[in-house]
Amino acid sequence: MPPLRTALLQSSGRPGSVAGNLKVLDEAATRAADAGAGLLVCPEMFLTGYALGDQVPLLAEPADGPGAEAVAEIAVRHGLAVLYGYPERDSWEDGPGRDGERDGERRGERECDGERIYNAAQLIGPDGTRLANYRKTHLFGGFEREWFTPGERPVVQAELAGLRIGIMICYDVEFPENVRSHALAGTDLLLVPTAQMHPFQFVAESVVPVRAFENQMYVAYVNRTGQEGEFEFVGLSCLAGPDGAARARAGRSEELVLAEVDGELLSASRAANPYLRDRRPGLYTSLVRADHS
Amino acid sequence: MPPLRTALLQSSGRPGSVAGNLKVLDEAATRAADAGAGLLVCPEMFLTGYALGDQVPLLAEPADGPGAEAVAEIAVRHGLAVLYGYPERDSWEDGPGRDGERDGERRGERECDGERIYNAAQLIGPDGTRLANYRKTHLFGGFEREWFTPGERPVVQAELAGLRIGIMICYDVEFPENVRSHALAGTDLLLVPTAQMHPFQFVAESVVPVRAFENQMYVAYVNRTGQEGEFEFVGLSCLAGPDGAARARAGRSEELVLAEVDGELLSASRAANPYLRDRRPGLYTSLVRADHS
Repeated sequence: MPPLRTALLQSSGRPGSVAGNLKVLDEAATRAADAGAGLLVCPEMFLTGYALGDQVPLLAEPADGPGAEAVAEIAVRHGLAVLYGYPERDSWEDGPGRDGERDGERRGERECDGERIYNAAQLIGPDGTRLANYRKTHLFGGFEREWFTPGERPVVQAELAGLRIGIMICYDVEFPENVRSHALAGTDLLLVPTAQMHPFQFVAESVVPVRAFENQMYVAYVNRTGQEGEFEFVGLSCLAGPDGAARARAGRSEELVLAEVDGELLSASRAANPYLRDRRPGLYTSLVRADHS
Repeated sequence: MPPLRTALLQSSGRPGSVAGNLKVLDEAATRAADAGAGLLVCPEMFLTGYALGDQVPLLAEPADGPGAEAVAEIAVRHGLAVLYGYPERDSWEDGPGRDGERDGERRGERECDGERIYNAAQLIGPDGTRLANYRKTHLFGGFEREWFTPGERPVVQAELAGLRIGIMICYDVEFPENVRSHALAGTDLLLVPTAQMHPFQFVAESVVPVRAFENQMYVAYVNRTGQEGEFEFVGLSCLAGPDGAARARAGRSEELVLAEVDGELLSASRAANPYLRDRRPGLYTSLVRADHS
């Protein structure tokens, strides 16, 4: 397979304006497609903005809601896959979740009115198909814990352009266990929409490249930037390769950066760096003991 | 407790010359003690050199052997703790190992003549007491796999100056699971003697600081430098703090670098960075499944 050119949309977003954010997406998709990209990755909560306060329930929508339809229309028109973050509403009345995770869901605080809201990210294929939907498992800070229920499915994947794509969101990637789970499940390219704030630049600059290296995968970390409500997002989006080098690195402004994900380079790197083969799972049992949580 | 000033001895070593290496240690201990250090950390296989080839069995000694006695004498004379790497000989005839790990040891390839050899590191206290002895669990490359048996005890600790000290060796630290196990066991300062080779500078430069940050601990990574047999060691020893910053960083030459390990700073950093509290062990079960090994 030829390398997958991947575009990272580092954006400030328009909080509360789904139409405004879809316009930004459409413009970015035009540029990404013109540059030959087959995948466009947007930040966490891109569809609605992140700093929504008590607007979260008003703006949340199902995984097959109108926002998903609008993103699918953009994906089809430009002929590329799109990963976008959004607040997902999941109604109890819908019956079991289509991905079978309903029974396992942790009971969140916001389950009044027969529904829960997740901090989610969805991958739409270039033909408009909803390929995968991930619910953030490791919520960060007071805002997220007030409004969202944590997801219970650690590894969500899809196939695209001959690569196994994984999804997680922001704080998830800071836990080495999460990315290791993806590596063990064969993820080649991990998409991480994020809303990374000051003073945690170290995560963008160092943790993300190390995750790519220690797990022998590509990691696309796509951030918001600028001030939004009480939050100051730090940009620094990057696509890190399995050697730990940033193939693309944004600064602090709104930017679209592109780099290639090369499956052949990945195979060669894995052959030379045997981390997964040299693991000794029998020595790691303390990591799954509940008394540490 | 006042901060523990820690000295990192980045050294080229004298392969095969225990007396020569002990002389280097004595000189470094003089300088470290003069600078107020309470702990001196040496590289992997410091006592004998790393590139020993088939000399390994000739130079290996028990944990309480003559090398340990010589190091203890230096520690007492200068009034500081010393961590040093060495090839450990463990004879079957000795009966159960003093740390009770005998029964659990994996059968290595080199168990002829009723003995096994480990790539070990030992911490000697300022009073000459042998505080802890660790056997490398994740062996690297053909040379190590030919001569050493892997250890079976993932977390070895000791108390020093009010801090919980942990020990691992080189390749061990590249596996996030290993360092996480130490964090869960309360390690404050992880000592990592190493023999890090070209072209793996990324480990010294980026992986080690990320390990300190993601686990909220100090990590002292102490490397060999220069050419030794077929190996080109890269130096770049560092003491990384829980914010991911290098408190001390050596270059490529033989150097003694010093920095402080501050328990109060560590407590404050842990309060502000709740990684261990925000873990979700129930989602990490794939990490301990044997079928991935």
